[in-house]
Amino acid sequence: MLIIGNHVSPYVRKVLVALALKGVDYEIDPIVPFFGNDRFSEISPLRRIPVMIDGDLTLCDSTVICEYLDDAYPGHPLKPADPADRARARWIEEFADSRLGDLMIWRLFFQKRVKPFVFREPTDEALVARTIEADLPAAFDYLEPLMPPAGWLFGDRPGIAEISLAAFFRNAELAGWTFDGARWPLLAALVGRTAALPAFQALRPCEDVLLRTRPLEQRAALAELGVSIAAETHGGERPRPGIMPI
Amino acid sequence: MLIIGNHVSPYVRKVLVALALKGVDYEIDPIVPFFGNDRFSEISPLRRIPVMIDGDLTLCDSTVICEYLDDAYPGHPLKPADPADRARARWIEEFADSRLGDLMIWRLFFQKRVKPFVFREPTDEALVARTIEADLPAAFDYLEPLMPPAGWLFGDRPGIAEISLAAFFRNAELAGWTFDGARWPLLAALVGRTAALPAFQALRPCEDVLLRTRPLEQRAALAELGVSIAAETHGGERPRPGIMPI
Repeated sequence: MLIIGNHVSPYVRKVLVALALKGVDYEIDPIVPFFGNDRFSEISPLRRIPVMIDGDLTLCDSTVICEYLDDAYPGHPLKPADPADRARARWIEEFADSRLGDLMIWRLFFQKRVKPFVFREPTDEALVARTIEADLPAAFDYLEPLMPPAGWLFGDRPGIAEISLAAFFRNAELAGWTFDGARWPLLAALVGRTAALPAFQALRPCEDVLLRTRPLEQRAALAELGVSIAAETHGGERPRPGIMPI
Repeated sequence: MLIIGNHVSPYVRKVLVALALKGVDYEIDPIVPFFGNDRFSEISPLRRIPVMIDGDLTLCDSTVICEYLDDAYPGHPLKPADPADRARARWIEEFADSRLGDLMIWRLFFQKRVKPFVFREPTDEALVARTIEADLPAAFDYLEPLMPPAGWLFGDRPGIAEISLAAFFRNAELAGWTFDGARWPLLAALVGRTAALPAFQALRPCEDVLLRTRPLEQRAALAELGVSIAAETHGGERPRPGIMPI
């Protein structure tokens, strides 16, 4: 099992956590977001990460990959058994991927970490402020009543809904944002419980190292942490602006 | 089973075709895209259509709805049984929803039909030309090698992949665009076979009528065609610019 992707992407994080929960080993080709070469465009036509290659199957969308993992690797099911609950879990995943992705990745993480450090462009501070003061609170107001008083959303184990939420909150944290847990206590508790899982905790050293390591030195830095690194075949030498990295 | 949505949306069309293939009856609240009221925002926080309400379950994403229909209504499975083929079908659905949605909806249908007739703004003809001459051919070049020489993509029946492709091609057709089938013959043949299914054909009169009927007269026009219309609870009197209709 090969994953092409970078630990700083929340969509990659979803898949790596799912693989860890299922106990599936993988190698990672730690492509730098935005750096994919022409061969990368061929296997990921929307230039998204993560890409998963399992035998002769290549997939390049985190939701489709996690559905496949649940179909092909039965350990630790990521979705509940009841059809209505399965749908509710998928909807929370979609809300995280779409809405939290827009807010926490494109308006926080991209503005605070990618624009100044990758593209040498200034952060749009007004957009960041509006996101923190208005748009994120509206998203949390929607999520809070859906959260469980304790434990997990569906049944006795965390699944794709919890993984998706916590994956995006981590990027907002990496962008320097702090969650006001007192205002949305159930959401804060669920995200906290999920982020504390060993499957999430094990990725934090990689995330921290990647954020402070220059693109062309990242493979070596991850190898030093003991990560199984695949041969590089899909990365270029510099970013291509204007493409979708997720 | 209640569907809130409009026949001109490809995402609504996906769900209506899936319901027809499965033989599930429904009522429709034919909300006009962009017209949802505050109550609509509460049940569809991203203001997307379609919304599906089945008992106490409310869903507002076409992919999640179709997954639910497959889990809850076993007639005419929309996905193949093999895990790898299921993943391939889901990826084609995702490619259609994301990439063909961007190109055929936002750059063709929105520009040619919605901007001038709903928002009284001019079409960006340069964007339309670039989409037709460069971006759509690239998307079709990617899809063509994935298409079957005859029959259906997976097994002996059309499923979510075929439905998704044909749903978007229909909107491009409604925008006045014509497909060059000679250049991508397998894709043209598959889309043609799918569009010819009774489940698609039955919707065409509704689509044609809606496109030439003013928003506040659409419910009556659909009722005249014999469509089961639900009580209106989610529509406003005028469009709200700047929101997501899909």
